[in-house]
Amino acid sequence: MASAYLTASSSTALGVPHPTLRCAMAGGLLSLEACLERCIPPEDLAEVKRILYGGEARKLNLPAAALSAAQERDFELQGYGFEAAPEQLRRPRIVRVGLVQNKIPLPTDTPVAVQVAALHRRIEEIVEVAALCGVNIICFQEAWTMPFAFCTREKLPWTEFAESAEDGPTTKFCQELAKKYNMVVVSPILERDEIHGGTLWNAAVVISNSGAVLGKSRKNHIPRIGDFNESTYYMEGNRGHPVFQTQFGTIAVNICYGRHHPLNWLMFSMNGAEIIFNPSATIGSLSESLWPIEARNAAIANHCFTCAINRVGTEYYKNAFTSGDGREAHHELGYFYGSSYVAAPDGSRTPGLSRVQDGLLVVEMDLNLCRQVSDKWNFKMTGRYEMYAEKLTEAVQPHFVPNIIQDYLPFGSYKRSW
Amino acid sequence: MASAYLTASSSTALGVPHPTLRCAMAGGLLSLEACLERCIPPEDLAEVKRILYGGEARKLNLPAAALSAAQERDFELQGYGFEAAPEQLRRPRIVRVGLVQNKIPLPTDTPVAVQVAALHRRIEEIVEVAALCGVNIICFQEAWTMPFAFCTREKLPWTEFAESAEDGPTTKFCQELAKKYNMVVVSPILERDEIHGGTLWNAAVVISNSGAVLGKSRKNHIPRIGDFNESTYYMEGNRGHPVFQTQFGTIAVNICYGRHHPLNWLMFSMNGAEIIFNPSATIGSLSESLWPIEARNAAIANHCFTCAINRVGTEYYKNAFTSGDGREAHHELGYFYGSSYVAAPDGSRTPGLSRVQDGLLVVEMDLNLCRQVSDKWNFKMTGRYEMYAEKLTEAVQPHFVPNIIQDYLPFGSYKRSW
Repeated sequence: MASAYLTASSSTALGVPHPTLRCAMAGGLLSLEACLERCIPPEDLAEVKRILYGGEARKLNLPAAALSAAQERDFELQGYGFEAAPEQLRRPRIVRVGLVQNKIPLPTDTPVAVQVAALHRRIEEIVEVAALCGVNIICFQEAWTMPFAFCTREKLPWTEFAESAEDGPTTKFCQELAKKYNMVVVSPILERDEIHGGTLWNAAVVISNSGAVLGKSRKNHIPRIGDFNESTYYMEGNRGHPVFQTQFGTIAVNICYGRHHPLNWLMFSMNGAEIIFNPSATIGSLSESLWPIEARNAAIANHCFTCAINRVGTEYYKNAFTSGDGREAHHELGYFYGSSYVAAPDGSRTPGLSRVQDGLLVVEMDLNLCRQVSDKWNFKMTGRYEMYAEKLTEAVQPHFVPNIIQDYLPFGSYKRSW
Repeated sequence: MASAYLTASSSTALGVPHPTLRCAMAGGLLSLEACLERCIPPEDLAEVKRILYGGEARKLNLPAAALSAAQERDFELQGYGFEAAPEQLRRPRIVRVGLVQNKIPLPTDTPVAVQVAALHRRIEEIVEVAALCGVNIICFQEAWTMPFAFCTREKLPWTEFAESAEDGPTTKFCQELAKKYNMVVVSPILERDEIHGGTLWNAAVVISNSGAVLGKSRKNHIPRIGDFNESTYYMEGNRGHPVFQTQFGTIAVNICYGRHHPLNWLMFSMNGAEIIFNPSATIGSLSESLWPIEARNAAIANHCFTCAINRVGTEYYKNAFTSGDGREAHHELGYFYGSSYVAAPDGSRTPGLSRVQDGLLVVEMDLNLCRQVSDKWNFKMTGRYEMYAEKLTEAVQPHFVPNIIQDYLPFGSYKRSW
């Protein structure tokens, strides 16, 4: 196992994993959409895309300099656009959003500061390309400055990756990027909250294109599943559902496991979010068939854009750990399958980024589409939120009586099959 | 138009539409899943199914008599199964559910009583096959005894299709089926509520396998979109979110447009539903790319099974009507695309029934899977419903102040692009 750890780690160094290894680890399919494109005959492909994805996403023409830089730096670069109808009183509100997915470039036993520096460098070279593509708002993956090490249940060195949201080195780094490129930066990190007992949070820092820290959003729902032992590191967020009215649009951040909770998306939307980012870290065996469903359902249900981001690759740890599933102790959490995508309020979506490679997804959207779809489908108008506020208030009472209508069958005739 | 109306109507008589016509109307694709099966090479197909559908659904071995009867009667018959892990203290709780999708067998200008009788006959011959397949609970499509005529905005003759939920002819018909086949029957109809001023409702009657009427569930959210002019016929349901504890499992009915409202699914689940039926009537141009997402997301989010049912075909009306979209007056609402399916709490799903043909989908499920998935993913435990009860109560107040953090930029530098 130790040799597998070393081999695999070194093979992912510098973001250039061995192609065969990475295919095997990813389950063999580099991208679902690429497979459909290759296999479905042209006469059916448009119809398959309409049913599966709400139609063919418009490809953006990205600058040649950006495309060649992405290729040199070994990351995928894709661009898509969503349109809205012209209106009389509002001009189009076009914004370009960037989603970044990446592997960790260095083995997890490299010194903490060296790992952070390498991630900063990697993100810097991706953001530079995003700027060439005219990106206005960029979001990185969950806990982007570190390996997703909570599977180990070890505290050191992993808690050393935590930083102040307001003035930690990563926030300062992002402020520089924001100013340099006139870009709003959403930076999900492990937060050390010194003024509240030094507690840890899973947070996202939102930085204005002016370079100012606008605020932060904390992960509202913490998983208790498999090796996602995060609840031993930090608690459920205590900042509610803030939205950030930036120069380019009103945005919110629903971190990772919060995508499973429809009420979480709803409250961000109630507060006015038009774009909700969902920076995540999730693995294939656990969630891959849920991945295309949940963020997209949230875009539909809340008449907004959602941006689902997942990291890529397998991260190896020196000390083996068990998983509460009877398996032998092992050195990795599982395969992070990338596949980052954007869903639009009309239910359409972009193809996903690759399952195996670092990537930047550039998506142009006209935010006017949110209100247009809302006025068409009317889910907010027909939502009956007063009723649900009451029902939910009842449902959380200790003596809640569920509305159950029980079948009456004559004595002796009620055959339970269980 | 009148001749198109007559031709198309007569071509759908007896449930045997002209194949070319129906292909053209359906957009050419008979079934998304059949297309994938045909086109994706075997070495990738399993992986594509894992990502798209959560894996390969187990095919049920259905009796030869059922298969040949279905073929004779010109409807598709498919069967799939979902398993759960064995437990020590609970026996498996295996139930077989049947979903029925169908065209209207007669033109819409046939006398009301004749149309209803023809639909009763059609359903009777499908339910007989369901009984051969061991179905325990069966659900028909929304407003199954009538064309989905609300697009016309005419009251007569369409309101004549309304019946008492408790003792109308359709309920009596379903009671006979329930007793004869020892089957729970979910019968969505247009309800005439005589004891409350003769108002109409869009309701589903739930009938015990003993033949007793257990109760009814009313459509909680009424669309205001396109030609779904239902809000001029009936109001939002006033019966809350009842669940029915039948001999075979605890079920609920979320009618049609309610599938767009995550809180609606949630409250059925809070009341204990393990299977939520979603009888619907929806058309391709409007919702087809939302269809695979919403009911499946609800199964995931609520740790339950969901059963999405849609009618099939195009229904023509004698009097032309406009659609509020600038188009000329026309005679049909659009193409109902069938594609009924079942989603499981683990996020996997069955393939959909055909987009063009009547069908019966038989799905065997072990209800123990609901609690097993709940204990694994813990969405209920981590749902923070107390917080959301408070937040939602605040959000519906007239003076609700959204949680907005506004960017501050020096005077003059805040360039609104809209």
